[in-house]
Amino acid sequence: MFLSELIPLSESLAILKENQKIMETEVINLEDSYLRVLTKEIYSLHDSPPFDKSAMDGYAVKAEDTFGASANVVKNLKIIDQIGAGDFSTKEVKEGEAIKIATGAPIPKGANAVLMEEYTVSNKEDLEIHSQVTPNENVAFCGEDLKKGDKVLPSSLIIRPQEMGLIASSGFGEVEVYKKPRVKLIITGNELVEPSPHLKKAQTINSNKYTISAMIKSAGADVEIGHAQDDFDEVKEAIFNGAKDYDLVITTGGTAISKGDVVVDVVDDIGEVLIHGVALRPGKPVGFGIVNDTPIFMLSGYPVAAMGQFDALVRQYLFKMQNIDYAPKIEKRIATLKIFSNLGRTDYVRTFSDDKNTKYILNRGSGIIRSMVKANSYVIIDENQEGVAKGDLVDVLFFDNMNWNK
Amino acid sequence: MFLSELIPLSESLAILKENQKIMETEVINLEDSYLRVLTKEIYSLHDSPPFDKSAMDGYAVKAEDTFGASANVVKNLKIIDQIGAGDFSTKEVKEGEAIKIATGAPIPKGANAVLMEEYTVSNKEDLEIHSQVTPNENVAFCGEDLKKGDKVLPSSLIIRPQEMGLIASSGFGEVEVYKKPRVKLIITGNELVEPSPHLKKAQTINSNKYTISAMIKSAGADVEIGHAQDDFDEVKEAIFNGAKDYDLVITTGGTAISKGDVVVDVVDDIGEVLIHGVALRPGKPVGFGIVNDTPIFMLSGYPVAAMGQFDALVRQYLFKMQNIDYAPKIEKRIATLKIFSNLGRTDYVRTFSDDKNTKYILNRGSGIIRSMVKANSYVIIDENQEGVAKGDLVDVLFFDNMNWNK
Repeated sequence: MFLSELIPLSESLAILKENQKIMETEVINLEDSYLRVLTKEIYSLHDSPPFDKSAMDGYAVKAEDTFGASANVVKNLKIIDQIGAGDFSTKEVKEGEAIKIATGAPIPKGANAVLMEEYTVSNKEDLEIHSQVTPNENVAFCGEDLKKGDKVLPSSLIIRPQEMGLIASSGFGEVEVYKKPRVKLIITGNELVEPSPHLKKAQTINSNKYTISAMIKSAGADVEIGHAQDDFDEVKEAIFNGAKDYDLVITTGGTAISKGDVVVDVVDDIGEVLIHGVALRPGKPVGFGIVNDTPIFMLSGYPVAAMGQFDALVRQYLFKMQNIDYAPKIEKRIATLKIFSNLGRTDYVRTFSDDKNTKYILNRGSGIIRSMVKANSYVIIDENQEGVAKGDLVDVLFFDNMNWNK
Repeated sequence: MFLSELIPLSESLAILKENQKIMETEVINLEDSYLRVLTKEIYSLHDSPPFDKSAMDGYAVKAEDTFGASANVVKNLKIIDQIGAGDFSTKEVKEGEAIKIATGAPIPKGANAVLMEEYTVSNKEDLEIHSQVTPNENVAFCGEDLKKGDKVLPSSLIIRPQEMGLIASSGFGEVEVYKKPRVKLIITGNELVEPSPHLKKAQTINSNKYTISAMIKSAGADVEIGHAQDDFDEVKEAIFNGAKDYDLVITTGGTAISKGDVVVDVVDDIGEVLIHGVALRPGKPVGFGIVNDTPIFMLSGYPVAAMGQFDALVRQYLFKMQNIDYAPKIEKRIATLKIFSNLGRTDYVRTFSDDKNTKYILNRGSGIIRSMVKANSYVIIDENQEGVAKGDLVDVLFFDNMNWNK
């Protein structure tokens, strides 16, 4: 059944959409919520600031009492109390009076402004003032940041530092988020060995384990790595257990002589293969299926093909599992070289792009990891487009723009 | 000593540079190296691929034996062996012969091409071929990705998925990286309480704990949070212990009535204050010092001021602790509103920017977290520039471009 017919990338994405899983939710401590996804709108429980407060260290006064004071014209007030941060005063400021106040403390009754400490000289309860203030000066008003009942955040956003602060100020120390997808990555390939200075004949170092597991992390998910030899029963056991215990299974490789693609055969046996073979370069031999209600992506053994497949298909699926619509920024650049591509096929061409141009990395073999290191972007050539000419304005997707916290 | 004289941001950055600490290094498993910083150049221990290998499932042949074969012109070869992934053959392909071969397996002696399986029909040792191949077709050559001894990566780069794959293919299962800075964040402020639906009079919810700890993570560091009341001895103990046990200390707040800034007084007492007061908006009341050879940043209690101070001063310092020069991308946009700024002061103006324009968020109070949520960027107004007029082309720094994995 291998690659009997290639389907366009757009059609594959439609199949994925029909079979999209969304994670369950959980309530976590706000302090652990950085880069997690909010499930619900947040409405503030408080005014913030929760009271009119001093924005400076100084003296709470009636502004009118300070009018006309300057470096040359000293005025005198009487200090009747002092308020530290976290304290408040029960006294009222009357004409000719002042209360010493710390930044963040509540403005006492009767006062309408704060005179900064550096414009004053105090001696016990006597205060000399050397500057004037206008009404409301150095006062942060109750509710100027948030009002109780305000909708302060929409649902389904990736929580940044400032959102954490806003959720806290709204009164919540816990927050409901989507669970992080737990992904089982199963590496197949009898020829694969761990990195080592010494290789036996026919052995190849397993690099997919590293690249694909890191890509899974870059899409906001957790990963556990497993291995299986190119053997039907061994692959079957690995996929069966992965589908039972994880939210998503991803395999790489699995091409065994005379047997077609053992991974695809296994999924066909214990589940359903919904995609096999996509008009995508690199990455044509890619599959998607469902085993035990768990989605499974079957990626190539070739490192660069597997990365291309991940970026074209898996990344958006993992984002959507956390209810985030993956919509990376596409920028326009000028192609400095002609690039070939067939109609009906989507090409993810590894390129190096600067502010103006994009240049493709000449060695495009699907095994060439080095091309992904030299590149900083893809030029995406759509299935309805037949290559690009030198000088064409093309769509560039920077690798950095594909990550979760972008 | 509080804010006796403001120094320009450029001068503060020069002082930080003179007092920059760099982390020690450690050797970790390659699998844990995503987003860590490589300390040394990597030279490959291997050719990769390590041998000429098959790029397809099919038959290793002498290309010359296939010339002329087509759907209509069948040629016949004799199958003399088969090679699975991870295996090799000791036999040599002679004229008229073929060896069945799996993707990734070594090309046997005598063969110079691989004919894809789908263009063949086999019956035991008899092989009918229905297509021709050219010499070298479907062969991935030894060393085409890497050559033994090649410098494959420079030092001091943030490791992405593809770098992990390349390091693996070069033969290394471990990698030397800079240790992640361990930061102690000390929150001061008697008025601060945990998020809750119920606040007592004069209490304010502690939002800095959340925003600043997440910002520390966004700069590639680990963080532990501590608290201290606005009391000289308590702050002294917290800073002393933090400086002893961590790589960097960051404080927020610490303004106590009549005593100036208790945090700065403590650092002056047990260490050295090198910066206090920077011509920066928001964020003027910011300090930097050294205690027990450990750098300490003293940030405001005001949420937005603290975030601005972090972005203008702390972020680049944390990056450089891991030997990364922080150089976020600055983009040009058109200002849609006039923005005031004084000569000699650097402004980080919260704005919302699209592909063309940038519009400043009108409420610029330094306590207003909501402005950081509405914004997606800063307009940076340099100290040598006196505000911007509507229609000016200005420097925009997108928040997303400041993070570690950008």
